[in-house]
Amino acid sequence: MEWARARKGDGSVVTGIVEGGALHPRAALGAEQGAGDPVALAEVTLLAPVVPGKFIGLWNNFHAAAEKNGWAQPAHPLYFLKPVTSLAGPGDTVAIPPDIGRVLFEGELGVVIGAECRNVPADEAGAAILGYTCVNDFTALNILTEDPSFPQWTRAKGFDGFGVIGPGIVTGLDWRALEVKVTVNGRERQSYACSDMIFGPEEIVARLSKDMTLMPGDVIACGTSLGAMPVKPGQEVEVRIEGIGGVAVRMA
Amino acid sequence: MEWARARKGDGSVVTGIVEGGALHPRAALGAEQGAGDPVALAEVTLLAPVVPGKFIGLWNNFHAAAEKNGWAQPAHPLYFLKPVTSLAGPGDTVAIPPDIGRVLFEGELGVVIGAECRNVPADEAGAAILGYTCVNDFTALNILTEDPSFPQWTRAKGFDGFGVIGPGIVTGLDWRALEVKVTVNGRERQSYACSDMIFGPEEIVARLSKDMTLMPGDVIACGTSLGAMPVKPGQEVEVRIEGIGGVAVRMA
Repeated sequence: MEWARARKGDGSVVTGIVEGGALHPRAALGAEQGAGDPVALAEVTLLAPVVPGKFIGLWNNFHAAAEKNGWAQPAHPLYFLKPVTSLAGPGDTVAIPPDIGRVLFEGELGVVIGAECRNVPADEAGAAILGYTCVNDFTALNILTEDPSFPQWTRAKGFDGFGVIGPGIVTGLDWRALEVKVTVNGRERQSYACSDMIFGPEEIVARLSKDMTLMPGDVIACGTSLGAMPVKPGQEVEVRIEGIGGVAVRMA
Repeated sequence: MEWARARKGDGSVVTGIVEGGALHPRAALGAEQGAGDPVALAEVTLLAPVVPGKFIGLWNNFHAAAEKNGWAQPAHPLYFLKPVTSLAGPGDTVAIPPDIGRVLFEGELGVVIGAECRNVPADEAGAAILGYTCVNDFTALNILTEDPSFPQWTRAKGFDGFGVIGPGIVTGLDWRALEVKVTVNGRERQSYACSDMIFGPEEIVARLSKDMTLMPGDVIACGTSLGAMPVKPGQEVEVRIEGIGGVAVRMA
């Protein structure tokens, strides 16, 4: 099942299920209750599929990247928060602010929480996951490291549009079988298997739910692996995961 | 003028202006439009005065603390995000999770944004500030530093209840004249002048609005100075700023 969020021609925004080329409105993300007539996908503009209350990103969560960069394997997921104003969705334009230096794309698997949870064991955490989406966790690399006393994770990853998610949220997937691919102007630039994760989605949800209550709609980006590269104005950057689809934005 | 948010006896939550011992409901934070009859403060339970979309905290923003700790003066405000689930308000109980080690109180001045702003110059940033509140930015010190490769700012400061704000949001104050005081079981433990800030509220709003769009209701905690101390279950910890009032919580 695929959840999506879209703007209709009259400007209103609907959340619903994608089926048979139409969006079938529901009362809320994850809700069974219908909320109006289906509308053809051709007649709506897809938006980021959810506006998360928390937009969490992991660092150093892939064995291949840790090994190549000489990073120790973490004992607990290492994470930062992206501001909700960094949210962007399919087809959006992402402006690179002047004077911030290099900006990298980072293709990632995104976990979307479906149920409030706190202190959930790993073997029950799957039930708290609504589904998966594609994430592009843009990062201003120079900003991240410009102050030697304080790595600026939130600032480097928090510019408007630097948190791309979409196109939809797909339920029932086995994340171990997924591959994250990023293309720039149609050319493949990043490709890695989710099975290489240090902490998989259920383990992440379990451990983070000990740190804070996770709420429906919260998004956790599982971190990137090797292959993140700088982007330039004018480029089209797409993150694609077979089984979920692709979310492309244009850099400006 | 003082804004507050409260739960009425019937369970409904109202935002409004405090005047003459009553809360006068308004359509939204900062709105001029009334939204119902006044309700006596004695008949409501005060809540955190706003649920922020972004809950931003600064590090290393006081000359005295920087000097004593040997921290270089930052070239740009250094900040992290606290999750919205860390929010707590007047009279709440804040549980210290087991096995996280020492937890410090940090009394701070909180800036509440009143108007959406982006790239606002410092001399116009005051107009984007709705008012000020007290903040207790609880921090799990051992968590912050437990991984040498990644300071865990969000995790250390993100536990449920670790972001106390209140009691209200007061407009029209001169922040340079304010003093932040923290008492533990009634005994003063922290006391410092806001005039010692490295970046004052207008400068913070101006610079952060270059990094991200600030939205009405966003809260920026201006950082703490000397005197933050560990807390223990059973203690009552109050942050008080003359002119704003005090926000007390009980540790469990």
